[in-house]
Amino acid sequence: MICENISISKDGILEFAGVEVTQLAEKYGTPLYLLDEERIRNNCRIYKEVFKKYFGEDSYPLFASKALSFKGIYRIMEEEGMGIDVVSIGEMYTALKAGYDLSKAYFHSNNKTDDDIAYAMDNKIGCFVADNVEEIKVIEREAEKRGIIQKVMLRITPGIDPHTYKEVATGKVDSKFGSAIETNQAHEITHYTIKQPHCDLIGFHCHVGSQVFGENIFERAAFRMIDFIAELKRELNFDCKVLDLGGGFGVKYTEDDPDMNLDEKIADVAEACQKACKRYNVKMPAIHMEPGRSLVADAGMTLYTVGTVKQIPGFKNYVSVDGGMADNPRYAFYRSAYTCYIANKMFEEADMKADLVGRCCESGDIIQPDIMVPSSVGRYDIAAVCTTGAYNYSMASNYNKLGIPPIVMLNRGKDKLAVRRESLEDLISRDI
Amino acid sequence: MICENISISKDGILEFAGVEVTQLAEKYGTPLYLLDEERIRNNCRIYKEVFKKYFGEDSYPLFASKALSFKGIYRIMEEEGMGIDVVSIGEMYTALKAGYDLSKAYFHSNNKTDDDIAYAMDNKIGCFVADNVEEIKVIEREAEKRGIIQKVMLRITPGIDPHTYKEVATGKVDSKFGSAIETNQAHEITHYTIKQPHCDLIGFHCHVGSQVFGENIFERAAFRMIDFIAELKRELNFDCKVLDLGGGFGVKYTEDDPDMNLDEKIADVAEACQKACKRYNVKMPAIHMEPGRSLVADAGMTLYTVGTVKQIPGFKNYVSVDGGMADNPRYAFYRSAYTCYIANKMFEEADMKADLVGRCCESGDIIQPDIMVPSSVGRYDIAAVCTTGAYNYSMASNYNKLGIPPIVMLNRGKDKLAVRRESLEDLISRDI
Repeated sequence: MICENISISKDGILEFAGVEVTQLAEKYGTPLYLLDEERIRNNCRIYKEVFKKYFGEDSYPLFASKALSFKGIYRIMEEEGMGIDVVSIGEMYTALKAGYDLSKAYFHSNNKTDDDIAYAMDNKIGCFVADNVEEIKVIEREAEKRGIIQKVMLRITPGIDPHTYKEVATGKVDSKFGSAIETNQAHEITHYTIKQPHCDLIGFHCHVGSQVFGENIFERAAFRMIDFIAELKRELNFDCKVLDLGGGFGVKYTEDDPDMNLDEKIADVAEACQKACKRYNVKMPAIHMEPGRSLVADAGMTLYTVGTVKQIPGFKNYVSVDGGMADNPRYAFYRSAYTCYIANKMFEEADMKADLVGRCCESGDIIQPDIMVPSSVGRYDIAAVCTTGAYNYSMASNYNKLGIPPIVMLNRGKDKLAVRRESLEDLISRDI
Repeated sequence: MICENISISKDGILEFAGVEVTQLAEKYGTPLYLLDEERIRNNCRIYKEVFKKYFGEDSYPLFASKALSFKGIYRIMEEEGMGIDVVSIGEMYTALKAGYDLSKAYFHSNNKTDDDIAYAMDNKIGCFVADNVEEIKVIEREAEKRGIIQKVMLRITPGIDPHTYKEVATGKVDSKFGSAIETNQAHEITHYTIKQPHCDLIGFHCHVGSQVFGENIFERAAFRMIDFIAELKRELNFDCKVLDLGGGFGVKYTEDDPDMNLDEKIADVAEACQKACKRYNVKMPAIHMEPGRSLVADAGMTLYTVGTVKQIPGFKNYVSVDGGMADNPRYAFYRSAYTCYIANKMFEEADMKADLVGRCCESGDIIQPDIMVPSSVGRYDIAAVCTTGAYNYSMASNYNKLGIPPIVMLNRGKDKLAVRRESLEDLISRDI
């Protein structure tokens, strides 16, 4: 199976985190998001351990919570001692209400409003990752007003092309994010920030791409950033305390994706950082990284009920389910690949090629084209889409006035509702 | 301006439906959806009049409410005597709660669940537009259970390639929607449906594409469908009472889009229908069409506040605003074109090229690339994106945990909240 938390029961039923998923579809209805809590906790522990092993005590991973944001996930991050990256008041509010201490939160976004900045400060955000001079001006003003010194990092674009798909390529010079080293704008904003009396610049952040596997882009980014840090040391005697290399480690969505050995990968990054610090003669800063997808994607699965199977002779077959681009827009946005199963027919041969499509009134509402399913597939069967823990719930919409599915958390064979299904009353609760 | 409901005040402020939009941004905050109520009502009246003129009393347009669904819009449709097309329990529920009489509603979707079908029948839906045999079976079962005869239409794919972009091309043979004439599956489902004692087959539906301008695809579809209807008359002596030619008339998003003359376009469709009926010797059925976009798109505008302007020498300029793909995913999905203005600087020359980008942590969060803006554009300016009335609110998400913006309705210079802003409390209301 595509992930080790997926198995098949002796009755030929797909199991996720040790539970037959058909039981869950029956109990909670479909569409349904499942989350394997143990997997998330385990992924957190792996990250924390390899960080400790290669980078030392001051270095740690931050969960990029835009990948999956609801109260339960912040409770897990608090319990696992994880830092978090937040991008909006909504994420900060959700974390706070879950009891997460925002002193371990880093506030990202290419466009923080005045309200965002005031809210974050009022709620004792650990650090702003400022994107631009406009933000630094507001942070300085608000910190002065409150009589505090605010910790700040700066987002820098190191000019690395990650060779992943365009939508998630954020480390190149031409980006809406951050300030480029190449154009000298990174230096300018650093000089400006250091002069602000109520800003304490602790370091720099970069992000070079998402769903990254083999390329040595983190190492290249580390070299470029440490070179930049060394220049600032020479020019301004500035000591960089923290270097955040962003997120982006790849996740295995299909058998075509390579396996990811996090230990090896982080060892390579650590070695590159050490080499760069030695070459440029600077003290090794604490290292942060911001995994989102790689912490939660393979802890997720989505269940649907099949409604229609359409065989168009000479053309194509379609299996339609009761969800679609409203709960998972990633194929529509990025042509993302997924592994799919007919969960109640795991012992039958998958001998028919079909597109797994959604129920939205739009041809582009495809969950995954060209999957293999048993030719007996039909109405009331349960379809499972794997590795949906990241950017599914967080990107879900009410398109076609469909309610957002619930999230059910699985742990040691027990299921627990974590987010309830959006009701009809919810759907019109803001209408006047 | 791109639409006649847009103008510039004597102070150089953008006006929408006669109101300076900066006042509305100030009063309601941003991001903000605006809707010009008079424009919607006027668009409805134009459709109704041309339908009456060319097709006669039994023919009428149905609002494809997936384009924009909230209580207020169904109140307008009820008052204007418009039929509606619905695709989910959510849309039916919203219409019902707005006092809309569902006997004028047609229930579409390529995948109606058993619950959908029961709900629609319990709430006296006017007609099902059944997509497939699985649905006909459930409709027959549920109608029998209730002792009623249920009106049904069948969705047919006439095999017309609309030459629009792929995501909205739904009339080709290879489609998740309906049954194809070419493969004989349209005949098979018709034969099957006619035999069901509790189904009253009143006619056929097809949909050949969206954002269609010049091509004569509606005329081609009408010919193909009436040929099919004639065959059924010969084979089964079946009288088709209603032919629904779907939606899809184009809307002017930018100056590059042609003007749409609805009167001429409908006259062409009517002529084609009459010619086809004459050629194939069948009685002209009542004609339905399902405008969505062309009823509401140009009645909409979205306002944002500018946060950051980034000029990257030798590369590109970026203007970042406080919304983005969460409230308007159409560029991210389809590379859709929009006309954009800096609303408080309409007298300044738009001399700088820039990408208008959103605040989401994703490079693909672009509202519109390569727009022209005044080079003085900066933080706190108001950006307006035109023609956002269709498929913006209805496709909005909470990505990056951003709340859905409110809808403010404008009518004769007055503004009225129609959907309130999603609050922080709303964002976690389903979290346990």
